[in-house]
Amino acid sequence: MERIYFDNAATTSLEPAVLEAMLPYMTEKFGNPSSIYSYGRESRLGIENARKSVAKALNAHPGEIFFTSGGTESSNTAINAAVKDLGCKHIISSPIEHHATLHTVEYLHHHDGIGLSFVKILPSGHIDLAHLRELLEAAGERCLVTLMHANNEIGNLLDIHAVGNLCKEFDAIFHSDTVQTVGHYPFDLRNTPIHFITGAGHKFHGPKGVGILYINENVKISPFIQGGSQERNMRAGTENLYGIIGFAKALELATAHHTEHSEYINGLRMYMAAQLQQHIPDVTFNGDLHGSSLYTVLNVAFPKSEKTEMILFNLDINGICASGGSACTSGANAGSHVIRAFNNNPNQIAVRFSFSKNNTKEEVDSVVEKLKELM
Amino acid sequence: MERIYFDNAATTSLEPAVLEAMLPYMTEKFGNPSSIYSYGRESRLGIENARKSVAKALNAHPGEIFFTSGGTESSNTAINAAVKDLGCKHIISSPIEHHATLHTVEYLHHHDGIGLSFVKILPSGHIDLAHLRELLEAAGERCLVTLMHANNEIGNLLDIHAVGNLCKEFDAIFHSDTVQTVGHYPFDLRNTPIHFITGAGHKFHGPKGVGILYINENVKISPFIQGGSQERNMRAGTENLYGIIGFAKALELATAHHTEHSEYINGLRMYMAAQLQQHIPDVTFNGDLHGSSLYTVLNVAFPKSEKTEMILFNLDINGICASGGSACTSGANAGSHVIRAFNNNPNQIAVRFSFSKNNTKEEVDSVVEKLKELM
Ligand SMILES: Cc1ncc(COP(=O)(O)O)c(C=O)c1O
Ligand SMILES: Cc1ncc(COP(=O)(O)O)c(C=O)c1O
Repeated sequence: MERIYFDNAATTSLEPAVLEAMLPYMTEKFGNPSSIYSYGRESRLGIENARKSVAKALNAHPGEIFFTSGGTESSNTAINAAVKDLGCKHIISSPIEHHATLHTVEYLHHHDGIGLSFVKILPSGHIDLAHLRELLEAAGERCLVTLMHANNEIGNLLDIHAVGNLCKEFDAIFHSDTVQTVGHYPFDLRNTPIHFITGAGHKFHGPKGVGILYINENVKISPFIQGGSQERNMRAGTENLYGIIGFAKALELATAHHTEHSEYINGLRMYMAAQLQQHIPDVTFNGDLHGSSLYTVLNVAFPKSEKTEMILFNLDINGICASGGSACTSGANAGSHVIRAFNNNPNQIAVRFSFSKNNTKEEVDSVVEKLKELM
Repeated sequence: MERIYFDNAATTSLEPAVLEAMLPYMTEKFGNPSSIYSYGRESRLGIENARKSVAKALNAHPGEIFFTSGGTESSNTAINAAVKDLGCKHIISSPIEHHATLHTVEYLHHHDGIGLSFVKILPSGHIDLAHLRELLEAAGERCLVTLMHANNEIGNLLDIHAVGNLCKEFDAIFHSDTVQTVGHYPFDLRNTPIHFITGAGHKFHGPKGVGILYINENVKISPFIQGGSQERNMRAGTENLYGIIGFAKALELATAHHTEHSEYINGLRMYMAAQLQQHIPDVTFNGDLHGSSLYTVLNVAFPKSEKTEMILFNLDINGICASGGSACTSGANAGSHVIRAFNNNPNQIAVRFSFSKNNTKEEVDSVVEKLKELM
């Protein structure tokens, strides 16, 4: 049975050209980047070139890019630093954030007495910006605003410029979880009013186990993980050398092909949406499919029935990979905190299909065909 | 020019068989281990088998092994947890710890008011165990004792059983930075009185960017990095799948060949020591070379001169990789905090040579020959 992989928001395949760029660093070029001899300096050079390449893709300064072990560590670092180092006493977030954000802000709220409020979610799944302003006005203390750029379950995009400007007005620190958009979306960080963004290599055909944290040059924080002087004293630990090389290569490729890939993938998504509407009765979509939404994600609401309750299971049996919520909580089977935040229709089953450049229209046809059978 | 790599305590080459074990997970087996479909479950199975294999090698329960991004993160996690979750109000450490420990305990001391004392170092470079007892007696609060198993600069080994039993007597929590011994030394954790140990794949021919934290089943801590429910809610973030597979494979190989490799490497080390004593006037060794010492590390004290002050530089020019201190601080050129802790002879220059199974007697001969020329 051929597998159809429609869960690219969970993780993506490693691009062969990325693996190829990593392999020399997994074989002969193994020197410790912190060692002073030339063999170590070669590794260091690899890392610094990777940093420059990432900075260029995001239009940031190389000094603003820090390599981490992934998106989760990056968000933990930014959020903790805003509280520990930047004087934030109140956090404004949203109920549809990834757990990397939610669990971190909840911990700071419960254990360190940091204020916490959640901005309202509109029925479209978007953040209520008027409510965000109210929360900032009401806070009376320096705030951290942490709102994700694209939601990993429904794809909704945040206007980070609008939120950034609002934060500026209130002297708030702004962190955005951009794990679903770095490598999928053009960034122009020099002209974006934001303090922290995050990225994870494995979301755009790069390696697992490596991510970035962008820290705007105007904020100074202390490291989250302490030890050696790696990453200019900002992230200790021997560097994931091949991971970093791979991250940069994957971002370079994603940036070079952005227009072509995004159009292609959006085409698949819209085609699948249309096919589903045509062939499956009463199907609807969670999020803002025809509005401001990431082109990789299609969140389908099927009418609940004995059959649709088994749908992920049956798709799996047929070799089709799709997901009910975010991968890292799907095991828990507790349903999606994201969908619940704006759609409390108990008579729907949400399934996320998420696409990459490696998917095809034929795969969409097969999946729609299978769904027709399974309904 | 052939390179001679005598800096295996900084990092080691990736074993080809380890890379081979990783490659399937870098190509076709890329599923997210947290995804519920069978394709994700295959990845999960890879991780759980890796965990079992690591647990077996260390004689621990699989439930006590947690994968992290490296030794530094593991130590940060253990030390912070001892304070945050286990009620430790006082930390006892030593001046010869790695910065991953030192910077973390100093931060907790300065920012969170945690008590901090350092145990005395004997001229041999060993911990003064009588002083450790005095410090435990004097503390009057629950202590965390964090002392490394083998020192990365001088190789001295700690008797972790003796320290563990002492800690038990005082109901102290015991963490040992075992980054230099995991993969180099047999462990029997079920019969070792210890709460936390750490490991880093790249120190024993495994991958960079992955490590472990052993957490004894009798201690319950909260995660250091928060988010998804990976690693049974103890370490959030999409897993470094191939890193984990590689870590386990490297440890499996290291364990299988331990006797043979350790004898061989110790032979090289002792041969080099003897050759240096024979050919270089007034050479001595830092640490306890003929006593309780790790077989990979030889720390040589050369008499200071204009020539020996340039020695690392000149070795580098000749393609020989060796180090002055730990890699992650060598850039700083501040000298070694380890050597300073027990040897304040200003007329010596310390150079660490550290060996692996891939080194040869011929390489030792070449290096000794070169050193004779350079003196
Ligand atoms: C929106 C979002 N934020 C954060 C993360 C966490 O990234 P990682 O699991 O790579 O640490 C993910 C994916 O898992 C995500 O989709
Ligand atoms: C004794 C010791 N502890 C901790 C570390 C940190 O490990 P890593 O750099 O892999 O995080 C190292 C090596 O760098 C080490 O030698």
